[in-house]
Amino acid sequence: MTGRAMTAELITIGDELLIGQVVNTNQAFIAERVNGLGIRIARMTTVGDDLDAIVASFADGMARADVVLVTGGLGPTHDDITRTAVCRLLDTDLVVNEDVRRHIESLLAIRNLSWSHAMDDQIRVPRAATVLPNPAGTAPGLWCERNGRVLVVMPGVPYEMKAIMEGSVLPRLAERHAGRVIIQRTLRTTGIPESMLAQQIGDLDEVLETARLAFLPSPRGVRLRISVEASERGTAEALVARVEGRIRARAGKYIYGTGDQELEEVVGRMLADRGLTLSVAESCTGGEIASRITDVSGSSAYFERGVVAYSNRSKVEVLGVPEGLISRAGAVSKEVAEAMARGILERSASSFALSTTGIAGPTGGTPGKPVGLVWIGIADRRDVLAVKFTFGGSRSLIKERASQAALELLRRRLLGLDGGG
Amino acid sequence: MTGRAMTAELITIGDELLIGQVVNTNQAFIAERVNGLGIRIARMTTVGDDLDAIVASFADGMARADVVLVTGGLGPTHDDITRTAVCRLLDTDLVVNEDVRRHIESLLAIRNLSWSHAMDDQIRVPRAATVLPNPAGTAPGLWCERNGRVLVVMPGVPYEMKAIMEGSVLPRLAERHAGRVIIQRTLRTTGIPESMLAQQIGDLDEVLETARLAFLPSPRGVRLRISVEASERGTAEALVARVEGRIRARAGKYIYGTGDQELEEVVGRMLADRGLTLSVAESCTGGEIASRITDVSGSSAYFERGVVAYSNRSKVEVLGVPEGLISRAGAVSKEVAEAMARGILERSASSFALSTTGIAGPTGGTPGKPVGLVWIGIADRRDVLAVKFTFGGSRSLIKERASQAALELLRRRLLGLDGGG
Repeated sequence: MTGRAMTAELITIGDELLIGQVVNTNQAFIAERVNGLGIRIARMTTVGDDLDAIVASFADGMARADVVLVTGGLGPTHDDITRTAVCRLLDTDLVVNEDVRRHIESLLAIRNLSWSHAMDDQIRVPRAATVLPNPAGTAPGLWCERNGRVLVVMPGVPYEMKAIMEGSVLPRLAERHAGRVIIQRTLRTTGIPESMLAQQIGDLDEVLETARLAFLPSPRGVRLRISVEASERGTAEALVARVEGRIRARAGKYIYGTGDQELEEVVGRMLADRGLTLSVAESCTGGEIASRITDVSGSSAYFERGVVAYSNRSKVEVLGVPEGLISRAGAVSKEVAEAMARGILERSASSFALSTTGIAGPTGGTPGKPVGLVWIGIADRRDVLAVKFTFGGSRSLIKERASQAALELLRRRLLGLDGGG
Repeated sequence: MTGRAMTAELITIGDELLIGQVVNTNQAFIAERVNGLGIRIARMTTVGDDLDAIVASFADGMARADVVLVTGGLGPTHDDITRTAVCRLLDTDLVVNEDVRRHIESLLAIRNLSWSHAMDDQIRVPRAATVLPNPAGTAPGLWCERNGRVLVVMPGVPYEMKAIMEGSVLPRLAERHAGRVIIQRTLRTTGIPESMLAQQIGDLDEVLETARLAFLPSPRGVRLRISVEASERGTAEALVARVEGRIRARAGKYIYGTGDQELEEVVGRMLADRGLTLSVAESCTGGEIASRITDVSGSSAYFERGVVAYSNRSKVEVLGVPEGLISRAGAVSKEVAEAMARGILERSASSFALSTTGIAGPTGGTPGKPVGLVWIGIADRRDVLAVKFTFGGSRSLIKERASQAALELLRRRLLGLDGGG
């Protein structure tokens, strides 16, 4: 186990996964934790409640990987076939385990329940398997070894699986695994498409050394994920820092945050730190900007108010946009975006104001003003300006992209970067 | 292809999945839709951005299943190796596709972007592959056939994958597949927890005959999914209709919609049909109600305006809530909720108004007014009332639950059902 990183495969079992009834969240949880130990996950497989398919997937996994982690098919219901599959694979049989019996008896006592037939099966485990206690339920985890390789079986119920992972599996894997460390860091960008971002970053061989870089697009922008694998944490961290530095030197102005940070948190922190306040006047984004800002705990310190001026009448009455301006320039125009931003700024006495007016679609577009056209205004005490954007996608994607662009406009203004898109 | 149901396998590609950074939601989406055609998913596999592993997974899948559906690794960046894997598998090469070139050129033109080097790769597709249009992005889907089996490759970005699935893949698969029919119907409920809903529906054997019923809880309410499998569409549809009728007879007042319908669509349709208008005054929901209402195309016909009155000052200035009332009753109170609803109703001259004021947390709670306490007001020309709710969960869950409860309050008012929670 020296030199080479240990590899693992994940097998999740359950018909409910194959019909799409349930989103498989166990995979991401297990992968992240196992990866954190420096063990590389090479493959994930999902099979149904079918004995032959399960046995085949176990055999395939153990032929390729050092560790095979399995969830599902251990519950007290009729489709509990995972234990049978383990026996088939290891050519062994099921025997009653007294520790499991005592555990189930004590759980039943706490819940004032009596022993049921289903429990008779639950206390039988494959001979030679090590039982991993399940503090959250009746079905224990199982740890089996063959030819120096490990097969771990856990129930599929997420909180039971998590309890067994944290309590038994991760400590055992950490002990078994000497060495490799994997570190990741995500940089969040917005306002630049994936292809242009790749161009901006340039020659990846120069940037990355032995690191890897993934481009992960989303409606709010492209995330850049740096991954480094090394034998020591210090080496890995230093390489991640060098790579991040090079990427920031080339595309820094598009990077608004790291990890899970959302743009509304970044902008909110900047406003709070400087004692500034914000109000928004939204037409086509329909309240989404206000909603995102108020998703952040503590936003009441800097968010003064929002207006969703959907009708022309409300633009006039609530924001003071001149009626003549709307009929002359059109509700979706630079002039109206600016008047909306100015209107909410003056009425709220905030430090900054954002405004949006556009055509979210799918109807309402014209050749001159197509679906996706959005004017975003930004005002402060000194001046006001509006920037034109054209976004693609569905109505809700256009709203989301316009919200992101508005918050990014404010971020750049706060940083003294160019205000343009 | 007669008698036996077609089988499919799913392959999702991406290092981000193997390290657990991203929860794999594509699998459940694809599985549910493909299952809906009566095609059985036999296995799901996830591999990393590794050419050999991808080619091997394609070959394994095509050896076992009639259809292999692949997502991921089609973006315009360096880790785009899926197309290369397709060529390796099918022993062919990449050729420039003029349809794809024109599609990308038109997307770039709309967004005012210029051609980048990365696009030169994007327009090359495996010879003999059929290109499936991607209305939501640059990378097209690919449909390949070999020995009567199908390999479909789609980008991993969920909204692009969904657009290609709905627009091209599902229609093509439906055409190809003859045989068993699986029909599903989802009834959406809100305002009642899963356990009480189960009680309300009662004895499932009586209700279901040979159908299956899944309870799917979410922050917006519990969805009830009826599934029926039969050899003929007519038989399946008749059983679904009988089951739906029985469920509606027992729990109808909690059911606001079916399928993917959101409450804001249902309420919006009711308002539009009757020529009524709505305005909202939000405090703790922070614009989320307005944003949801304006997610619906055509909402400008009935949504007059929204105010996000986050500060006390804005409640006074924009909604006319008396300052003394706020200091006497507190901003989070029945009185203020009612005053907010009345204020926006009068100022907007709408038919209906909704208001929210509450404590979204995680800070700001007191023993008398804990986190999760929300007053929701509803006003029309004749009267105004406010209903008290206590929601659990994180800040964003409390916002979401309060938005849903407010819209449900309006739905019940419009139907003449009881106005209470």
